Amino acid sequence: MPVSLARLQEFIAAAFMKVGMRPRDAETVGALMAEADLQGSDGHGAIRLPQYVKRIRAGGVNLQPNIRVERERAGMALIHGDNGMGHLVMKRAAELAIAKAKDAGVAWVGAHWSNHAGPASLYARMALPHDMIGLYFAVGNANHLPPWGGLDMLLSTNPIAAAIPAGDEPPIVLDMATTVAAYGKVKAKAARGETMPEGWMIDRAGKPLTDPKRADEGFLLPIGGYKGYGLALVVGLIAGTLNDAAMGKDLIDFNRDAGGATNTGQAIVAIDPSAFGDLAHFKSEVDRLVRDLRASERMPGVDRIWMPGEQSHEKRVKQSKEGITLAPQLVKNLNALAAELGIEPLGEA
Amino acid sequence: MPVSLARLQEFIAAAFMKVGMRPRDAETVGALMAEADLQGSDGHGAIRLPQYVKRIRAGGVNLQPNIRVERERAGMALIHGDNGMGHLVMKRAAELAIAKAKDAGVAWVGAHWSNHAGPASLYARMALPHDMIGLYFAVGNANHLPPWGGLDMLLSTNPIAAAIPAGDEPPIVLDMATTVAAYGKVKAKAARGETMPEGWMIDRAGKPLTDPKRADEGFLLPIGGYKGYGLALVVGLIAGTLNDAAMGKDLIDFNRDAGGATNTGQAIVAIDPSAFGDLAHFKSEVDRLVRDLRASERMPGVDRIWMPGEQSHEKRVKQSKEGITLAPQLVKNLNALAAELGIEPLGEA
Repeated sequence: MPVSLARLQEFIAAAFMKVGMRPRDAETVGALMAEADLQGSDGHGAIRLPQYVKRIRAGGVNLQPNIRVERERAGMALIHGDNGMGHLVMKRAAELAIAKAKDAGVAWVGAHWSNHAGPASLYARMALPHDMIGLYFAVGNANHLPPWGGLDMLLSTNPIAAAIPAGDEPPIVLDMATTVAAYGKVKAKAARGETMPEGWMIDRAGKPLTDPKRADEGFLLPIGGYKGYGLALVVGLIAGTLNDAAMGKDLIDFNRDAGGATNTGQAIVAIDPSAFGDLAHFKSEVDRLVRDLRASERMPGVDRIWMPGEQSHEKRVKQSKEGITLAPQLVKNLNALAAELGIEPLGEA
Repeated sequence: MPVSLARLQEFIAAAFMKVGMRPRDAETVGALMAEADLQGSDGHGAIRLPQYVKRIRAGGVNLQPNIRVERERAGMALIHGDNGMGHLVMKRAAELAIAKAKDAGVAWVGAHWSNHAGPASLYARMALPHDMIGLYFAVGNANHLPPWGGLDMLLSTNPIAAAIPAGDEPPIVLDMATTVAAYGKVKAKAARGETMPEGWMIDRAGKPLTDPKRADEGFLLPIGGYKGYGLALVVGLIAGTLNDAAMGKDLIDFNRDAGGATNTGQAIVAIDPSAFGDLAHFKSEVDRLVRDLRASERMPGVDRIWMPGEQSHEKRVKQSKEGITLAPQLVKNLNALAAELGIEPLGEA
């Protein structure tokens, strides 16, 4: 049975309030996590609730954070997240970047002492209703990537997201890990008892690793080999080190260490196209480009050319009308959590 | 026989002056092209001189450009390159971004009506002497990449560069095309009669293409499959479309159309770490990260872990002392050009 966006948000918020989150914060985090499921980012939506609750109970997250602007200039700001939920920190960062870009044309807002914030695209997308471009960079929350040629896992899947407004076409929304596969996809393969394609992971001898249950014996491969290693490193430097957030050896694995503060680093950039030229012209040029790409002659067997984010967009539209379909096992897990917390269950699996 | 940096710069400048470039501009472009060879970016140094001269003679480049700031806010500017040499436009853009970032903390400068500017890393690196981070995005000068699943070449190898200052360690300098191989590497393979590895190009049926002489029958592959397609598209949107520069169908192939203005779009971002925190602390944290990565246990057969840009750095240091080694065929070609132009030859091959 599909669940409505409003009901899913309310359920998540109720769970967070039960473990002590301030009602307004719980509503905000609930809305962002439900939005993740709405757009099909299943690995970053309600599925994370039990883990977040566990971290909160272990004291790993500050429920009374004083999220504040620590440094600020015309084109930038640094936010201290005070170890609050990452969703709260990055929503604040995105709002500040957008407000600053209205004056400065472009604004970069970094954050430290933040936490896991769900799908990167949510924050880049916050620029869209303001007719702005959003870029997002983050340090991932567990190291699964060694330097190129190395064996020590010192880097994370450090994602990049970008959201670009169009005119009549859906926005272009890119959301990608700098590894061939995100670690969540490996875990999903293991849960379903499937093997991984070659190219996702290698073992310590450099041989392809395709059994996801053996994931601990190997590591993720970066996109484009040494290029993806360089990209993951640079994203970590501008989202982590620049903000004096955790990077490299200092990163804790937030799955294994529920009680430790992660000092997660993230950054968001808001770009106002109207500072560069005529906004309507820009948006019509994006439309024209999208249509040219979509009309490309296709390779044999290819039914349709997709823009980045177009499948998520269609899922958003569909599930906004018809409700959000969650995996039966997830609904069971959420209902079990609800029983334990003493809140209304989400519904039938 | 190696040639000194100063001699190579002077030679290139003399050639440009002979075809009508203003002496100061010729010196600037000569210095940047020679610096490309100094750091081993062979595909973007003196090897481009005959092509640039050809474009100048065909009227494809404006030798009296009025490179000007067209729009400006605290955190951004848009430069009109007036179809001048890309090196001049992007040097101006980088200097402006750095100057603005001294006040604003972060500044983004886009350019349109620019031209091919050589290696992306040169411009990102300009931030380094100012203890700043430089990012660079550009639209490539010929389309070799279709949308994912498509056959029409509507995208270029749109490169990304990043330069991050360290303390005692060399800076981290990433310079990468968003395709597995840059098109120049394909041409180099063809010139040497070698085959390409699988994964560089595919043919129109989607099969691996390994004969570089058949490059016209296929296209480059993006890094990480659809991820690299998305990345190339986003880079093109923020470096091209945002600046009202050529993108997609409007791009001309600058190798085939010597007389047409390319309207090349590029963007540079300068980030001042001292706006985010203590500069010395930032630089020592970069050092610490570099040393942790370098000390990683290595895979069998790997002698050394490299940082992005470290090999170019070593080449820079070596060739600054010992002179720049150019391929004998390149020296012959440059001497032939010199004879034709009536300037001193570069030297012996």
